[in-house]
Amino acid sequence: MPRRIDKPDYPVAKVRRYLEPGPIVLVTSARGGERNVMTLGWHTVMEFSPSLVGCMISAGNHSFGLIRASGECVINLPTTALTDEVVGIGNCSGAAVDKFERFGLTAEPAEKVAAPLIAECHAAFECRLVEDALVETYNFFVFEVVKAHVAREPEHPETLHYTGDGVFMVAGRIVDKRALFRPDMLRP
Amino acid sequence: MPRRIDKPDYPVAKVRRYLEPGPIVLVTSARGGERNVMTLGWHTVMEFSPSLVGCMISAGNHSFGLIRASGECVINLPTTALTDEVVGIGNCSGAAVDKFERFGLTAEPAEKVAAPLIAECHAAFECRLVEDALVETYNFFVFEVVKAHVAREPEHPETLHYTGDGVFMVAGRIVDKRALFRPDMLRP
Repeated sequence: MPRRIDKPDYPVAKVRRYLEPGPIVLVTSARGGERNVMTLGWHTVMEFSPSLVGCMISAGNHSFGLIRASGECVINLPTTALTDEVVGIGNCSGAAVDKFERFGLTAEPAEKVAAPLIAECHAAFECRLVEDALVETYNFFVFEVVKAHVAREPEHPETLHYTGDGVFMVAGRIVDKRALFRPDMLRP
Repeated sequence: MPRRIDKPDYPVAKVRRYLEPGPIVLVTSARGGERNVMTLGWHTVMEFSPSLVGCMISAGNHSFGLIRASGECVINLPTTALTDEVVGIGNCSGAAVDKFERFGLTAEPAEKVAAPLIAECHAAFECRLVEDALVETYNFFVFEVVKAHVAREPEHPETLHYTGDGVFMVAGRIVDKRALFRPDMLRP
């Protein structure tokens, strides 16, 4: 059973540290009495401040309707400790099951949105929809991260990066090249 | 000196295998007699077929103007063998230097666009701009990959994933979870 992880507040302008590497994330959503969680690999940082993240959420997903209607979601960052849960969540539909119950995940209340945080994830980013111009044509949502929560350690958790066909790459080993950077380029 | 890598044709509908994991890429551009290359970490896959990739290219980059005007670029995938070149390219401007010469990279002609391939990269994806609705407001370009080139080996090269502040995560170790997937979810 994965353990719950305490996540102190974190500056929203710095979430690129966790999202720019391109990990698989778990996106939670809620509307009325309904809630859901989906796996997502198609996302990108778009700005530091306001803290913007773009996500392609296929209209075939049960979560699409919840996110479209509520204009909110939470982007949760799982580590390799949740590999089997990530795979399981991606292989069933929230239209048929409560994925929190099925995969033993704890939904915690967020502060600024109705969608829940996943207690067992390393980080969680509360998001509000700010741009839907490409939703109809590309299923592409631009969210603003309005509140961020990140565990204090490990400093660089092992994350999952999906290649398709059931295969993930694992990122975790660190290469520090600060010495080669111009000081003004070292924005965290 | 990094070596040139032979890259046979690859199906454009399968480029997610290399881009969804979220690696740092080198984006080349050209217009008239000018060419450039920039590092980019803010990109996402948006569709299998047509093969779409979204990129946030800051207007402060010299490449922005070349890509905006030509409507083309090439997304090149470097491995950890090019770590110092990736850092160097991100820390100088194409307005001041020819980065191909400075970093010992070989520009090879692409097939469908004017921007060059980087011979020393593991993969190269020729792109045409298909959607610019979010360029003015968010510097966000949607490209279609119109031709793909990928080296036959290694099957899973080590790639660089930027966290900010001069620090990269390295992805390379593989976790195969095919056995846990529904067969219809195993799209490569």
